[in-house]
Amino acid sequence: MLKVPEHQVAGHQALDGKLGPLIDDAGRFYKPLQKDGRGSNEVDFYTSFSSNTKIPDHIRRFFPIFYGTQLIEASDGSGLLPHLVLQDFVSSHLNPSLIDVKIGSRTWYPQASEDYIQRCFKKDRETTSAALGFRISGLQLHESKQSGFWKPDRKLVLKFSAEDVRLVLRKFVSSNSSADSGVEPDSLFASTVYGGSAGILAQLVELKEWFKDQTIYHFTSCSVLMVYVKEAVVKGASSCVEVKLVDFAHVMEGKGVIDHNFLGGLCSLIKFISEILTSTDENATSFQQPNNDHACTNCAS
Amino acid sequence: MLKVPEHQVAGHQALDGKLGPLIDDAGRFYKPLQKDGRGSNEVDFYTSFSSNTKIPDHIRRFFPIFYGTQLIEASDGSGLLPHLVLQDFVSSHLNPSLIDVKIGSRTWYPQASEDYIQRCFKKDRETTSAALGFRISGLQLHESKQSGFWKPDRKLVLKFSAEDVRLVLRKFVSSNSSADSGVEPDSLFASTVYGGSAGILAQLVELKEWFKDQTIYHFTSCSVLMVYVKEAVVKGASSCVEVKLVDFAHVMEGKGVIDHNFLGGLCSLIKFISEILTSTDENATSFQQPNNDHACTNCAS
Repeated sequence: MLKVPEHQVAGHQALDGKLGPLIDDAGRFYKPLQKDGRGSNEVDFYTSFSSNTKIPDHIRRFFPIFYGTQLIEASDGSGLLPHLVLQDFVSSHLNPSLIDVKIGSRTWYPQASEDYIQRCFKKDRETTSAALGFRISGLQLHESKQSGFWKPDRKLVLKFSAEDVRLVLRKFVSSNSSADSGVEPDSLFASTVYGGSAGILAQLVELKEWFKDQTIYHFTSCSVLMVYVKEAVVKGASSCVEVKLVDFAHVMEGKGVIDHNFLGGLCSLIKFISEILTSTDENATSFQQPNNDHACTNCAS
Repeated sequence: MLKVPEHQVAGHQALDGKLGPLIDDAGRFYKPLQKDGRGSNEVDFYTSFSSNTKIPDHIRRFFPIFYGTQLIEASDGSGLLPHLVLQDFVSSHLNPSLIDVKIGSRTWYPQASEDYIQRCFKKDRETTSAALGFRISGLQLHESKQSGFWKPDRKLVLKFSAEDVRLVLRKFVSSNSSADSGVEPDSLFASTVYGGSAGILAQLVELKEWFKDQTIYHFTSCSVLMVYVKEAVVKGASSCVEVKLVDFAHVMEGKGVIDHNFLGGLCSLIKFISEILTSTDENATSFQQPNNDHACTNCAS
């Protein structure tokens, strides 16, 4: 039985009879092929990437597993439509906190129509993309069992200023209320979620090392999705922290040139996260992770 | 006595009664302040940079020394005009080969007028800036005493494709004729000029390490100038290889964000140069530098 995913924060959503992705109970994510060649471009990317022997395994783990394409009943009732079948690495988590960061100061690609380029150019300047080299596309932060999730409206998210982005990246790893703008985020989980050898920063740096060298693909308008489970981190299970790349509808051939647009934006995000970690260390308010051996029972990995 | 510099490859030039920079015999470069606030912005940058104690010495050496401003007779005969007084690190070299690379896929800055932004945006797409993260703005390669310099016309340089850029970066370190398009560049000096601990690649990497972290300035529309003296390299004086940053009329405050635009472009240039070095090593055609102790007599450094 296919159903609408609970934890989607960006992109088209299959709600109210609209076309959007679906999930099953076996950990698979079904994404309808987008129109105007974007869907087929994404299939081409996954097909090429899956079979490319030049991709190291430690880089491959940042990408969702690709199971091919499948004709399934579309969420908008328009009949059978081709869908990408991908690993669902979000729904396997209980109450995941997640943030979708679209990387790059530029989200257009040279082969696009002039109209498309101008629309992207405008949006890149209106959001933080041009200034910061990335923009937050969506997020949900799990507050507590009682109050559930803080999931700001997409329109609000796209209006984030540089300072909002800095604040939200701190809220993402804080124990106190995110919705209340009067509360200073405590960054209590920064050292566990962002820091450490398996934390988000280490994973982003590993990804960056590859981007300094790889000239196979240009990941235009692609997102870094950062996921963790707050309840698991409180229990001491830091292995629940995941970084994945998603949305490859605009991936282009690199043609021997590095993806300087993605690399620059990724380095900027790394700097933002490093600074949160540094200031947390200095203030010494960081969360002391319980010294136990609990396995990460809330996530599949 | 002030005179027109011989070895300028980009920017406004003081020829035929036009306004442009001048040099003296004491190693100073006089650059007239540009209009529309660009000149005063460049003075502000040099003033701020000169007194900023956060700039490490190993980074400061990549910038021309700033001696203040001075009212001097302008090259176009328009009377006394304020000029930036800078270190002239080009004219002190005998027959320098040099290449001016404007770094960044984007040469506009957010505070500019819409008209200015659109003109830059168009030029960035028409040149290699958007695709490669940098464009060659000008170059001159010393061929030999007999044939002098190869200095392609500026209009031709701005039409360079990605492949032209790759070829020119090889020509820059080759012993055979650059003007003749039928000759394959031999990359004979690649290991001496690009390679080694004092070579261009090592210097660019050092600069990159700073850009990964610095959030003080955004070097919009700024160039990396690479200079070396072919005759000196033939004699074994590799210390004549220099990398300098120039043109700070559009430098902006970093406001706590890294210069992801410059960093991405710099990483792309580094990759281009690395690949020339790698292919030179593989073909083992590299120039065997004479094992002598000659000092670098042709350059000031």
